[in-house]
Amino acid sequence: MTDQLSYIIELAGTVAFAMSGSFAAIQHRLDPFGVLIIAFATAVGGGTVRDLLLDVPVFWMKDNTTFIVILCAAILTMIFKSIEKNFKVTLFMFDTLGLGMFTVIGIEKAIYFGANPMIAITLGTITGCFGGVLRDILVNRIPLLLRREIYATACISGGVLYFLLQYATSLNQSLIHLFTVLLIVGIRLAAVKFSWHFKPVG
Amino acid sequence: MTDQLSYIIELAGTVAFAMSGSFAAIQHRLDPFGVLIIAFATAVGGGTVRDLLLDVPVFWMKDNTTFIVILCAAILTMIFKSIEKNFKVTLFMFDTLGLGMFTVIGIEKAIYFGANPMIAITLGTITGCFGGVLRDILVNRIPLLLRREIYATACISGGVLYFLLQYATSLNQSLIHLFTVLLIVGIRLAAVKFSWHFKPVG
Amino acid sequence: MTDQLSYIIELAGTVAFAMSGSFAAIQHRLDPFGVLIIAFATAVGGGTVRDLLLDVPVFWMKDNTTFIVILCAAILTMIFKSIEKNFKVTLFMFDTLGLGMFTVIGIEKAIYFGANPMIAITLGTITGCFGGVLRDILVNRIPLLLRREIYATACISGGVLYFLLQYATSLNQSLIHLFTVLLIVGIRLAAVKFSWHFKPVG
Repeated sequence: MTDQLSYIIELAGTVAFAMSGSFAAIQHRLDPFGVLIIAFATAVGGGTVRDLLLDVPVFWMKDNTTFIVILCAAILTMIFKSIEKNFKVTLFMFDTLGLGMFTVIGIEKAIYFGANPMIAITLGTITGCFGGVLRDILVNRIPLLLRREIYATACISGGVLYFLLQYATSLNQSLIHLFTVLLIVGIRLAAVKFSWHFKPVG
Repeated sequence: MTDQLSYIIELAGTVAFAMSGSFAAIQHRLDPFGVLIIAFATAVGGGTVRDLLLDVPVFWMKDNTTFIVILCAAILTMIFKSIEKNFKVTLFMFDTLGLGMFTVIGIEKAIYFGANPMIAITLGTITGCFGGVLRDILVNRIPLLLRREIYATACISGGVLYFLLQYATSLNQSLIHLFTVLLIVGIRLAAVKFSWHFKPVG
Repeated sequence: MTDQLSYIIELAGTVAFAMSGSFAAIQHRLDPFGVLIIAFATAVGGGTVRDLLLDVPVFWMKDNTTFIVILCAAILTMIFKSIEKNFKVTLFMFDTLGLGMFTVIGIEKAIYFGANPMIAITLGTITGCFGGVLRDILVNRIPLLLRREIYATACISGGVLYFLLQYATSLNQSLIHLFTVLLIVGIRLAAVKFSWHFKPVG
């Protein structure tokens, strides 16, 4: 998994999150600009909070590509909303792949700037999940993250695997990436497939 | 439009946003300290997020004037809430003027710190709009921004005009300011006057 | 009140806020990971916003202790939720002591980084209160802070006392700490005991 492939998958993740934001906004009957704003917040929210916490430049501040990708994704979603049904599986796959990649990217950026494993896993989870939380706060519903989905669980498990492989094996970085993403994607898929969820505590 | 005039209008915008926050808080039956907090969040929210994203010192951290202005605006609003009706048009004018000025201030600060046009327009829009979003989240309603008002649309249009004038004409900076603010104010006024709104997408 | 004592009480405050977040999450029937995330957000939210506004490294980024303390507090709360009733008074005391200590810590950190009194009181109040606001936004109810509790009032009063003692007396720092915390705790206790609250403005 080269840097280039990683960049392409990150963009795919951005597209997926932008589309998931757009769908949520359309479902809440927002106007086109509202849709655009929710798409943007969903796609860059996690990475923005990560960069603010790390006190490094926010990743989209010098980068027009992210912008244009989000803009196109939101517009396409508005145009093709009618074919949402056929689209749903593809979208879900993108969204899940994006979750995995965003988590790994978050972990590695955190390590690069000197975070220890526990902080790195937290920042990875924030990178993967926060955009969706923001989306749900903005359209005023209880964040999906907190309603017995396995989002955070998948990210945290992936993060733990990442560091286990790092310390306990001599696998190269690309394979560690790959396995981490696969575990996150796998947990999410299995959770949806088998309707896994934790029981509420109360 | 000199620096001094710009500063005065910025303070007027701060007053207007503080008052709009106070009215929303009063309407939701918060106590005086709740009103104060919402007033503060509404008035400085946009600029704060802009400065965090730019990674520059947050504008109100060294500046007592902003504080005192917001405090006075919130107290006056609580005292004069009974005359809200007569007040409404003035308030709306201030709020709209503030939106325009805040957007231009956000754009210029972003350019000053090296942002490209697309990022600058985004940061201008955030500066103008985020305070109101925060206000609405805090009192737990769907952000006004997202409910078919023309807030974001006006800011984005103003931002585009700003850069068109910058690149395509030789107008001096003050006139570019003025036209940008006028366009934003004009769109907002027209939108309210003629009940313009986009149709929801869904 | 030595540095060490201050550190211990800060950890106790962290525990209390983590537990208050956990209780709120359990009450809203979130799953264990949801509970963990709300506990984390409640305990570190205020200090995180303070550090972002001050543009200094976020306090928990290099510190595993905070993490482990929050994790343990959340798990213990989930296990012992059945004995919540007997626990309530202890929790309330911790929460209130934490509010006082967090406010003082916020004020001092702000002063240390050059803030003037008005800004310092604001940052102290944010440090004490923001975690609770975040908790309430995440579980989608109107922030407790804004519903006629005396949280913010207590913090602001404590902050004013802090600077009065600083400028008008020759008390040493430890006693100023102590009196500030006592005033905040006292106002909170009295407010609950005698059902004090401000009337809504409207």
